[in-house]
Parts: sequence; structure tokens; C-alpha cells
Amino acid sequence: MERIEHRAASGGWQDVYRHTSQVLGCDMNVAVYLPPQAATQKLPVLYWLSGLTCNEQNFITKAGAQRYAAEHGVILVAPDTSPRGDDVADAEGYDLGKGAGFYLNATEQPWAAHYRMYDYVVEELPALIDAHFQTTGARSISGHSMGGHGALVIALKNPGRYKSVSAFSPIVAPTRVPWGQKAFTAYLGEDRARWAAWDASELVASATERLPLLVDQGGGDEFLDNQLQPQWLQAACTAAAHPLTLRLQPGYDHSYYFISSFIGEHIAHHAKALYA
Amino acid sequence: MERIEHRAASGGWQDVYRHTSQVLGCDMNVAVYLPPQAATQKLPVLYWLSGLTCNEQNFITKAGAQRYAAEHGVILVAPDTSPRGDDVADAEGYDLGKGAGFYLNATEQPWAAHYRMYDYVVEELPALIDAHFQTTGARSISGHSMGGHGALVIALKNPGRYKSVSAFSPIVAPTRVPWGQKAFTAYLGEDRARWAAWDASELVASATERLPLLVDQGGGDEFLDNQLQPQWLQAACTAAAHPLTLRLQPGYDHSYYFISSFIGEHIAHHAKALYA
Repeated sequence: MERIEHRAASGGWQDVYRHTSQVLGCDMNVAVYLPPQAATQKLPVLYWLSGLTCNEQNFITKAGAQRYAAEHGVILVAPDTSPRGDDVADAEGYDLGKGAGFYLNATEQPWAAHYRMYDYVVEELPALIDAHFQTTGARSISGHSMGGHGALVIALKNPGRYKSVSAFSPIVAPTRVPWGQKAFTAYLGEDRARWAAWDASELVASATERLPLLVDQGGGDEFLDNQLQPQWLQAACTAAAHPLTLRLQPGYDHSYYFISSFIGEHIAHHAKALYA
Repeated sequence: MERIEHRAASGGWQDVYRHTSQVLGCDMNVAVYLPPQAATQKLPVLYWLSGLTCNEQNFITKAGAQRYAAEHGVILVAPDTSPRGDDVADAEGYDLGKGAGFYLNATEQPWAAHYRMYDYVVEELPALIDAHFQTTGARSISGHSMGGHGALVIALKNPGRYKSVSAFSPIVAPTRVPWGQKAFTAYLGEDRARWAAWDASELVASATERLPLLVDQGGGDEFLDNQLQPQWLQAACTAAAHPLTLRLQPGYDHSYYFISSFIGEHIAHHAKALYA
């Protein structure tokens, strides 16, 4: 882990590290916010997964999350959204390839060699974070849009691993919407039977842990009707009696103005679970 | 005033307007944050002046100021940092020309035709804001770096016009540092006698209002020793017995991470004066 950025923020340090990922087969940047309490004690970690076109910078520069992490004593870890580098396959368009890893393990060519963001976020990155920083081992996970999909799927597939999960404007049913169908066709192949394992609205039916889902969705989101469709998650949770708090926030769009308006409530929600 | 952006944020609206400036002779963008209270009552206005290379976007996307403006009931107005457009003179380098208006009225060619940011910020923009929004008429002013210079100079040159003034990492003595000397030579000419009217550390000596100056300066700021040199302002305020609160914040650099860490305190400071 090479520290490439180090900036004082809200009494702590907003750092960015670069490391070689064995899982992804490339160098990766990851943002780590260390609140002031990190200087003297072990802290829990909130993982943040960003959306399409983002890298490790968007969340740390636009969400205004540091002041809440400092208030609650939570480390924030925000990785990039895909493998990177000249050796990594890419596609035209913003919704496939670099910047669009979809937090899954690809099985199809040319993606399978590097596109293993699921294993990276679930296994390699937490091991790296816990080895390099003083952590309690308690973890929660959140994200936005494609990253909201990632947070929900990762929490549902790993009972017991996260203390809490939340999402902003998540893709809740990728098998049913254009963004997900394009990505899953490329990364997982044409056989739709293999897609369900990466769809939060499908995974809810067989979830054993019943970790409550907190989802905020902007009512003025330009992708609401076409790509996000939170009603699929609501229906699945109702059918499975899975706990869900789905809040439709009137007027808010898909941007970081929405995230910055509610990130304080999300961090408070995670801190309560992480310190329980 | 044409509204070109309209985004829900912290219970209010982060808007961007485009208008034709008579003073600058070009079209200008200006960001306006309307907190939730703006829907039902007249509010005071805090003007924010950004630094070199910025436009109207930097402050509204990175400072995290909206939540504090919503808390205190203050409208935020953040203009661009220079005239813009194909007809406007420019120079190579980030510190002269477009993005580097220095909040003064240029007298030299080729700048004098459009570079009148002082008149724009002091006269034309407030008149426009007060005509288009429900304001109480109470105004304060703040800014960062070149914009901190602008806020201090504008407040000092206009006794009675602002309820309060503050600055982050301001250029306090432009006549003594490279950024200011380059800009003033170009915009104002070689005669240094004319520069003092645009230098906060010079203006303090003749200030009649004695409006307290609040200045935050990062101790890890990469421009501290070469360009910022807050000791000149401190010495001038001491000599003139002008009220100054200069806070050196250890570790903080020149970035928006510094601004976002302390903008809440600055907005609380201004709100207290604006509602007094």
C-alpha cells in the first residue's frame, strides 16, 4: 500500500492508497478516511461502493461524508469501481468495462481475467484494510446506483459479514433493467439463469440473515423509471417478509447533491450497528 | 436570468443561473443555493468568491455548504471567477485571465474591456439577486485564496455594505507575492502606487468600519510561505488595531477538504451577523 494522497479533513485524514490487487491483476486506488479517533483506538469500517463512471475520488470530494465519519468514529473505505490499466479490457460507452465493474465476478471473455470486483470488495480489500489499519473487524457497506446494487448484493450474499447495509438510488433489479442486462450479458453470458445470483431482488427470497435494508431513492431521479425501479425490491421484500426501509425523497435527482443531503443519516445508521 | 441547473439539496435547491452581465460584457454563470426557508420568507445572502482556476461549480459541489445554509436560513451566491467567452482576453497559465479575475477593475489593455469583477460582485450581481429572489438586503461575503483576497478587499472598500466577512487561505498581500504581482502588473499596470487600493493588508490602515476579519489558514498549505503569507495581514491589523481572528489550522492544505472542514463554522459566524 503506497499512500499517494494525504489531506487533513474534519480533524482526521483523507488518504488515497495505491496497491497491486492479486484478485484483479492490476494496480488499484482506494480512498481511506481516518477520523480523529483512529489515532488512538481501533475503529469499525464503512465500505462505500460508487456508481457508473466513478473512481475512488467522487465520494471523497463530493459527498461531505468525512464530518459524519469524524462525529461517529468510523473509517470510510471507498475503492475504485473497476479494474484499471492498459491490460484491462474495456468497451465503448460508460456502462460497461472500466468504471462499470458491477461488483461481480465475470465469467466471459474478454472480461473474466480482471473483472472480479466482487472478490476484491468482499475478500481482498477488507483483508488489506484490516492488515494496514487499526480496525475492530466490524464492517458495514453502502453505495450509490451501481454501487448501491453492489452493496445490497454483497450484504445479501454474505450473511454475518456486515453489521448493516444501505444504498442510495440503487439498481435493485439488474436482470430487469437495461444497465444490468447489458452488463450481465457481457460479464456473465447469455444464460439468464446465472444472473439471479447477482440481483438483490432475487437474492432477498433466499436470504437467511434478514439484515434490514435501508434505501433512499430520489423522486426526481432521471433514472428512476427506466433503470432503478425500486418497486422490484419492495415487492421481493414484501413477499419474503425481509425488512426494508425504502424512502422516496421527493425532488432529489441522481447526483451527489442527493447523497450529500442524506449521507449523515446513513452514517449514523451504520455507526449505531457498528458500535452495537 | 435563465435557470440552467435545478437540483434538490439539503431540503432546498441548488440552482445555477446564466445571465448577461452589462458590467463584464459577457454571459455569466452564477450558483444560487436557496435553503428550505426561502419558500416562505425573505432571507439574507452570503456571497462566496472562489479561487484561481475555479468557476461557479467548485464551491457548490465540494464545500458541503448547503446543509449549513439550510440549518441557518442563508442564501448562498457563488459567481464565476472571471468574465468568460470567446471575446474575452486570456493568457497562458492558470493565474491570469480567465479563471483569474482577482475581483478588481482592470485599467490596462487587453483586460480593461471585460475584467471588472469588482463592479460585478459589488454592484451588478447583488442588484440582480435582490431583484430575482426574496432577500432581506443583509449581505455577508467570504471566499477562498484569490476569492479570500476578493472578500477581504471588497468588505474593506465598502463600509456598511456587509454584515460580516471571512476568508479561507486568502491572498492577504497581493502586492507582495508572485500571484498578485503578476496579476496586478497585467490588470493595473506597472505603477505600484495604484496597487494598494486592491490589497487587504494596505486597506486595513485606512478602514473606517472596523468590521472584524475572520481568517482560517491551513498550516500544511502548499502556498502558505510563497503566496499567502498571512503575517502581513496580522501585522497590518495589529498596527491599525483592526479586529482580526486569524486561525492557523495545523495540517490542512489549500484544497476543498480544508474548506469543507470549517465552512460550517464560517456560515454560523455569518448567520449570527446576518440575523443580528
